[in-house]
Amino acid sequence: MNFAHLLAARTDTMGVNAIREILKVVSQPGMVSLAGGIPAPESFPMAILRELSAAVEQKYGSSAFQYDATEGFGPLREALVDHLAAKGVAATAHGVLISSGSQGVLDAMGKVFIDRGDVVAVEAPTYLGALQAFNPYEPRYVQMATDDDGVIPESMAEVLRAHAVKFIYLTPTFQNPTGRTLSLARRKAVAHIIQEQNALLVEDDPYSDLRYRGDALPPIKAFAPDHVVYTSTLSKIFAPGLRIGFCVAPPLVRQWLIVVKQGVDLHTSTYNQALAAEYLAGGYLRRHLPTIIDLYRPRQTALLGALDRHLPDGFTWSQPEGGMFIWLEGPAGLDAETVYWRAVERKTAFVPGKFFFAQPGEGLPTMRLNFTMADPTTIDRAVQTIAEVIKGLNS
Amino acid sequence: MNFAHLLAARTDTMGVNAIREILKVVSQPGMVSLAGGIPAPESFPMAILRELSAAVEQKYGSSAFQYDATEGFGPLREALVDHLAAKGVAATAHGVLISSGSQGVLDAMGKVFIDRGDVVAVEAPTYLGALQAFNPYEPRYVQMATDDDGVIPESMAEVLRAHAVKFIYLTPTFQNPTGRTLSLARRKAVAHIIQEQNALLVEDDPYSDLRYRGDALPPIKAFAPDHVVYTSTLSKIFAPGLRIGFCVAPPLVRQWLIVVKQGVDLHTSTYNQALAAEYLAGGYLRRHLPTIIDLYRPRQTALLGALDRHLPDGFTWSQPEGGMFIWLEGPAGLDAETVYWRAVERKTAFVPGKFFFAQPGEGLPTMRLNFTMADPTTIDRAVQTIAEVIKGLNS
Repeated sequence: MNFAHLLAARTDTMGVNAIREILKVVSQPGMVSLAGGIPAPESFPMAILRELSAAVEQKYGSSAFQYDATEGFGPLREALVDHLAAKGVAATAHGVLISSGSQGVLDAMGKVFIDRGDVVAVEAPTYLGALQAFNPYEPRYVQMATDDDGVIPESMAEVLRAHAVKFIYLTPTFQNPTGRTLSLARRKAVAHIIQEQNALLVEDDPYSDLRYRGDALPPIKAFAPDHVVYTSTLSKIFAPGLRIGFCVAPPLVRQWLIVVKQGVDLHTSTYNQALAAEYLAGGYLRRHLPTIIDLYRPRQTALLGALDRHLPDGFTWSQPEGGMFIWLEGPAGLDAETVYWRAVERKTAFVPGKFFFAQPGEGLPTMRLNFTMADPTTIDRAVQTIAEVIKGLNS
Repeated sequence: MNFAHLLAARTDTMGVNAIREILKVVSQPGMVSLAGGIPAPESFPMAILRELSAAVEQKYGSSAFQYDATEGFGPLREALVDHLAAKGVAATAHGVLISSGSQGVLDAMGKVFIDRGDVVAVEAPTYLGALQAFNPYEPRYVQMATDDDGVIPESMAEVLRAHAVKFIYLTPTFQNPTGRTLSLARRKAVAHIIQEQNALLVEDDPYSDLRYRGDALPPIKAFAPDHVVYTSTLSKIFAPGLRIGFCVAPPLVRQWLIVVKQGVDLHTSTYNQALAAEYLAGGYLRRHLPTIIDLYRPRQTALLGALDRHLPDGFTWSQPEGGMFIWLEGPAGLDAETVYWRAVERKTAFVPGKFFFAQPGEGLPTMRLNFTMADPTTIDRAVQTIAEVIKGLNS
């Protein structure tokens, strides 16, 4: 039987994911991949997890395995108050919602705010998973210009003046895919603009704890608390497989996010939330985070050094102080997808940057390189291969 | 700030949940509740869970905490093949999808198939969580008549003839809220109808393992495999807080469910899936299930006996062979919500049945009584209180 005639109209915008298709080859045996966007398994606190299980069993018993409130597990919401305060986000436990990864918040924002054809303002380039979350609600994307300091406030203001924007989506710190961070001055400017225009901003902050140099910046939420849905995750600093995200939103938005979540998954795994509560409240994150930083910092250094050593003239790249990615821009005319296929023939992968733009045809000479999943030696070899492919393109 | 003007039109259909509001009082201290729809915590395999954690750590190590495929964790999909086969559902591991509770499948079915105004056919009464999952996609519900043997096939056939139905939603075994089970003859009749009309059926099967008497019936999926999205969960036979559901769908539907899930939560908790895989593959479910049955059977017996003893004439109720609920129908003119509020004053709760009908104004004299969360003595006292309230209604 074929039920294609029964599909909802929105499936037209959800079609098979081009990036998923081209990345299928990445899992081939022997592939050296800078394509992933995932934490190194050796960053997971495996020994700590054993202690957490024991603590959860002792403290919560069977209630850690029972249905729980849609809003989230009480002790985790409480533990997140301090975690958020340390980042500059003021919240009560009641104001914190738990989600199944921050992906759940993005889907819910789409469901609550986007009617077909509504405008969502995104960075160019932006996080692909956000587009995948919003697409089923059939938005129209308007792109805001970015440079090395992140989104350009004047571009945001112009977009807000020209369009009836439902919400703005930003990843201000160590952005995926560029690794770029919005400067302090721009954070304040963005806060001022959204307050003045009464706009709603989704601030996605998965990476800010992965800082290898320099000083932490306050989130935009700190400067415009009533206008920002701040969302983050424990995926990069605990364990992504546990699927724990969280958000702090203005009251009306929070109420609707809860209604949506109840219909989508009732609530996030109680047991995993209990493990996360103990990880935060027991001080384990504070103790373990330096181990993660010490693992990733030399990998980033290795990638930046390898780019310096191997790449031909005409390439520029970001110099982020943290996160998981370096963004590479080649000369106009370079087709990064061609580079991709030739590199894959030589068992080396990355992600062509064009997939991170909401409008097709942009970012053709760009690439996203991940450095968390490979050791320095492997990274150097991978960059050497990519550089050789680039140099051999016209031969 | 108020962002109400930014809300999507669909939020009109998602409004604050009346049942959630009236059930808020149920969590008051001292309340004896037959209102819940949740497993008893003493049914959870707590000692087994310790063994499962150890097995997962040893077998899967850090990969149990890493991101994983949207489709589900391989070992769990494999373990479910046997579990499904025992129920009469033929599937390969590739054909099994894991979801974050079966709620995730229901939301995804809505997203994939429902355009505003599309018809979804549901039982009268039906599972409220399904309506909550479908509502954001703005369907129009058409009800199919039911009796003690479940949905009436002639009513289904008539609905399919009269409306362009996107899909039918049924809970054929120990339905929530009625506890009713579709007879074998009707299962075959339903399978015949959906094949003949080329219709798509969502068969929700969360309760069939909780059988206290009589013989298991094959699911409709067994008779019409190409036309049925079969969905189930481990929430009632393992631990609901782990949020593990699964489904077997026709290929086109399966593909779209994966696309949707990627946008909603990337994947279900890897760790919880690994625990579930060990629970099934290690034979623990087979060993533990009798303990759950032995816990619930006397509670059901107690509830049925208490109804016999205490209720005045004019009431009828279901005599299910399993599940978690008894459905009570009072005489015409009875307002079960009035009974509810008076019972709550006396610290006893249940759910007025009207909330389980897609059309307002139906089921006014009906009630859903749960028996899994209270011991036999408590159940008897609760029914006595409800009966006293009913008898005192006209005084």
